[in-house]
Amino acid sequence: MSVHTIHDRLLNVLILNFIGTFIFGLSGGVLAVRKRLDLFGVMVLAGAAALGGGIMRDTLLGNTPPATLTDWRYLAVAAAAGVLSFLQYSWVESWSGLIKVFDAAGLGLFTVTGTSAALNAGIGQVPAAILGTLTGVGGGVLRDILAQEVPMVLRGEIYALASLIGAFIVILIRRAHLPIIPWDVFAALATFAIRMVSLWCGWHLPIARPRIDIESERMGL
Amino acid sequence: MSVHTIHDRLLNVLILNFIGTFIFGLSGGVLAVRKRLDLFGVMVLAGAAALGGGIMRDTLLGNTPPATLTDWRYLAVAAAAGVLSFLQYSWVESWSGLIKVFDAAGLGLFTVTGTSAALNAGIGQVPAAILGTLTGVGGGVLRDILAQEVPMVLRGEIYALASLIGAFIVILIRRAHLPIIPWDVFAALATFAIRMVSLWCGWHLPIARPRIDIESERMGL
Amino acid sequence: MSVHTIHDRLLNVLILNFIGTFIFGLSGGVLAVRKRLDLFGVMVLAGAAALGGGIMRDTLLGNTPPATLTDWRYLAVAAAAGVLSFLQYSWVESWSGLIKVFDAAGLGLFTVTGTSAALNAGIGQVPAAILGTLTGVGGGVLRDILAQEVPMVLRGEIYALASLIGAFIVILIRRAHLPIIPWDVFAALATFAIRMVSLWCGWHLPIARPRIDIESERMGL
Repeated sequence: MSVHTIHDRLLNVLILNFIGTFIFGLSGGVLAVRKRLDLFGVMVLAGAAALGGGIMRDTLLGNTPPATLTDWRYLAVAAAAGVLSFLQYSWVESWSGLIKVFDAAGLGLFTVTGTSAALNAGIGQVPAAILGTLTGVGGGVLRDILAQEVPMVLRGEIYALASLIGAFIVILIRRAHLPIIPWDVFAALATFAIRMVSLWCGWHLPIARPRIDIESERMGL
Repeated sequence: MSVHTIHDRLLNVLILNFIGTFIFGLSGGVLAVRKRLDLFGVMVLAGAAALGGGIMRDTLLGNTPPATLTDWRYLAVAAAAGVLSFLQYSWVESWSGLIKVFDAAGLGLFTVTGTSAALNAGIGQVPAAILGTLTGVGGGVLRDILAQEVPMVLRGEIYALASLIGAFIVILIRRAHLPIIPWDVFAALATFAIRMVSLWCGWHLPIARPRIDIESERMGL
Repeated sequence: MSVHTIHDRLLNVLILNFIGTFIFGLSGGVLAVRKRLDLFGVMVLAGAAALGGGIMRDTLLGNTPPATLTDWRYLAVAAAAGVLSFLQYSWVESWSGLIKVFDAAGLGLFTVTGTSAALNAGIGQVPAAILGTLTGVGGGVLRDILAQEVPMVLRGEIYALASLIGAFIVILIRRAHLPIIPWDVFAALATFAIRMVSLWCGWHLPIARPRIDIESERMGL
């Protein structure tokens, strides 16, 4: 593989990462506008959502200072998402269906790059899958905690599970020594597809019910 | 001391650590079921409660990636606690009195291993006590923040104070050059005892009262 | 410059840092008393507010264990602020106007020392400004999340923006190779002044309004 080709592929990964950062930034910015925060609050929530997952992963791996914090381009992309949410809220809102699509794409992408980075750091497969999932969902958790919402990852949608499945696909790809470039894209697409199909079909995971609820139901309450 | 004996003792510490991880995992899982979270939410809260304290300690000490994240056995123990909470909620709930006993035991254990790890990393005695307390209570704080509850450590029970006292006993043991094995167990038991006795007797720390409250009382309101 | 002079100046920075730590500790302690937390809860919130920003900065920079955690003097200053808040709540409360002045001074100071530490660690200028702002506002964010309040940094006051402006002044000082001692004090004073003037004048940043609100207003609702 020529140096030129490697450079092209790394550039592609970087561009996809920027797209994921931008989309997650929009999710934070839109939430901030809905919560009636000021311009700075919008920027903070956009930055937390866009950069939080990568910062958590790098800090736990000991890759300090985290790349997403030292590379000004990530900061610029997150800031652009915040400003766009603030200025064009109605427009961003009206595209919110599409945002869920983009968000699922970002989830798939960050899961794959996060798991890959964790494996490259030499940690085990199960921990790498956990860190990959944390990269995918961490920004959203930080965004929701700051905004005083129950984190989306704890609500009854298939979100983190899609990310975890994607992370394990990445690990299977490494174990089978499959070529990384086409198969990692497949892992990201699989995460994306699981998330989207579960959204469209209203799938959710089972909820445990305290016995008192079950008894109330039996008695017709 | 023969290699065999050292191995036995390390194994004992590891087993006790796994027990603590399991018990803290149950506390997260039961809270998640009570909050009507789905299976994945139960696993997340179980993992946060079981592993959070150790991850915070190791990250602050620079021991990255944290051992509790890279050792799959900790992850497996935390996951088992989550699954058990989900499947056997009523059974776990009915044992909740015993869970408080186990939780106090986990608090004592994690405080001692956390303080010990911090001292081994070469930091001072007071910071080591703080980090030991953080190891003991950190998982519960993360669990409560994710679940949108006021952290138990801030509520009016003697919880973190028991942990802090245990941490200082560990430091006194090191200063007096006492043998670690019997005395560290004593420190864990002391933490456990303080927590249990304060629970049974309803002890709590004093609460500061704003002057307006005191005046209202004087006026018989 | 003689060794004696350098020592004097470092001592001055340290003393100013202790003052900032103390003031931020008071802000956490007073909030805890208002929330009716017990003595230990008061100490936890005082410590989180006083030390949180520096701990976050050092952890992200990889300076582990963080200096504010290993230097017992920071812990002692934070603890003193907690005890004072608990014992002399009414007195501290009656000085709350002055506390806002001190808090603004702490914000300016921590912003400058945080940005400076980040630049010394060799990271870029924009990331250093972000980390400096995080140092200034991070303790307050941790305090508010623990106490279940919407973080002040997200409310409609000019707070983090003052910190960010101060951080960029520090960066301009470094780029222009100006002498650090008088100019860094100027950067801290500028942050302080922006915060105080915006408080006195009731300045706030613009808030984005969802379209539905604007329409409601048009219809006189």
